[in-house]
Formats: sequence, structure tokens, C-alpha cells
Amino acid sequence: MDWVIFAILLAACFGAGSTGGLFPPGPWYRTLNKPVWTPPDWLFPVAWTTLYICMAAAGALVAGQPGADVALALWGLQIALNGLWTPVFFGLRRIRLGMGVLAALWLAVAATLVALWQLDWRAGALFVPYLAWVSVAGALNLSVWRLNPDEAANPPEMAR
Amino acid sequence: MDWVIFAILLAACFGAGSTGGLFPPGPWYRTLNKPVWTPPDWLFPVAWTTLYICMAAAGALVAGQPGADVALALWGLQIALNGLWTPVFFGLRRIRLGMGVLAALWLAVAATLVALWQLDWRAGALFVPYLAWVSVAGALNLSVWRLNPDEAANPPEMAR
Repeated sequence: MDWVIFAILLAACFGAGSTGGLFPPGPWYRTLNKPVWTPPDWLFPVAWTTLYICMAAAGALVAGQPGADVALALWGLQIALNGLWTPVFFGLRRIRLGMGVLAALWLAVAATLVALWQLDWRAGALFVPYLAWVSVAGALNLSVWRLNPDEAANPPEMAR
Repeated sequence: MDWVIFAILLAACFGAGSTGGLFPPGPWYRTLNKPVWTPPDWLFPVAWTTLYICMAAAGALVAGQPGADVALALWGLQIALNGLWTPVFFGLRRIRLGMGVLAALWLAVAATLVALWQLDWRAGALFVPYLAWVSVAGALNLSVWRLNPDEAANPPEMAR
């Protein structure tokens, strides 16, 4: 485990994750129809903090191994997409575009998981909860789309 | 030059860069007082597209070399921060917080440049225009802050 890599990747996670604090759910999200299994608001930061530590540890575990470059490049791709969903969904309130971002994120996370697993199964395993959480987020986003068709079809203009 | 890495990193760039299209400058930005040397709007996407290709090429050049892991981890950090500025500045219109994001991005880009240069001076050189552009963006953000003190002190609430 390379602690310098761990620290760098954890900083990247919290950079992407800062969008969660900058674009909070707010009253708009509370008025949306949501499925009964929607996780409570407090669970999101707890889950993400745990996942960030796992994600940084996964990258740090494989660092230095031959062939780690593809895994680390994919890691960079997934973190770039990770920070995109919150501004799109909570900032722009574009529910359908949020679904597109989550689909791209899911694919990037799955590809990173596979690349990590080929180097060290423990690193791949550390990405499993992340893929599961992104799957839940995707199901939630899809469900919000279906339950709020008018809102999804007519995203509000940002105050300009 | 590893073309798989190049494609992955370029995808990460355009993931982060999509915030430029999602949070465009708009009327608010046009009403701000700006310095006389402010680059024209059309130059931003042209500059960023060029920089993205250089950034992806820089990472792809060093991939596979021993010690490339730190450079690629720093590359991941800088792309996570890269996608943050536009939603903060044009989305939230938080001029001072945008300055903080740019300062963190500048440090991450400078660190990546140094790590790349130690592996291959050409890879480091490909990051020089990027660091220069982030410096210009920082100077512009700072100048906008100074020229619009009321706007900087009282960021508008997002429509909720």
C-alpha cells in the first residue's frame, strides 16, 4: 500500500465529493416523488466518505505494479465523472441528463473494478461497494425520472 | 505513447470539460466588470480542447514507466479539480470560492507537471500550456473579484 498515492487519490475523491456540499439536495429534491426505498439524506455523506476511503485504498494497493497504469487512468476517468452528477442533478435539476452521467459513471467504475481486480483481487473488492452504490443511485435517478415525468421533461432554467 | 491510456485520459478530460457546456457564462458573466485583457468567449473552448489533447498525451507518454503511478495519481487529482471550477463559478456564481478552486487546481497541475517532467521532459512540457492557462484563469478570477466586490461578497442564491 503506497501512502503517497493513497493521499493523492483521497484528495481527488474529496475534490469531486465537495460538489455534494456545494449542490445540496434542498427543497426542490424534497418536493419530488421518490420511491419508498429512497435512502435517507444522512446516509449519502456517510456512504460516500466510506467509499472514498475504499477507492483511494484500491488505487494505492495496485500502485507500483506492472500494468497499474490502465487501472490508474480508469481511476482518473471515474473520478472525473463522479464529480459531474451532483451539479447536473441538484444544480441544473436535469434528471434525464443525470441518468446519462450515472450510466457513464457506472461503466467507468465497472471498468476500473475489472482492471484493479486483475492486478489484486483485494483492490477490485474495494470497488464492489462503490459499484453497488452507483447502481442504487442509478435506480433512484431512474425512479425519480419515472415518478416525476413533467419535472424530468421540463428542467427549470437556472436563474440567470 | 500508449493509445489506450490516451483514450481513457481524453475521455476523463471531456467528462470534466462537459461542465463548460453545462454551465455556460451566460448574461450574468457579461454584466460583470472584467479586465481589458479578458480573453474572448470563443477562445475558452478552443484553448481547453487543445489543452485536453496535450494533457491526455502527457499521461499516455509516461504510462508504463516505473514511477508513473504518482504522476497518474496526480493526473487524477487535477482532473477532479478541473471539473469543479465551472459549476462553482458559473453555476453557483461564487467568485471567491472559484478562486480557491483555481488555487487548488494550480497546485495540482504544477505537481503533476513536475512528476511528469521527472519521467519524460516532453510529458512535462505538454503540461506547461495548461499551467499557463490556469494561471491566466486565476488572474482573471482574481481580477473579477476585485472589480466586482459586491457581487463577490454576496453570491446570489440559486433558485430553489
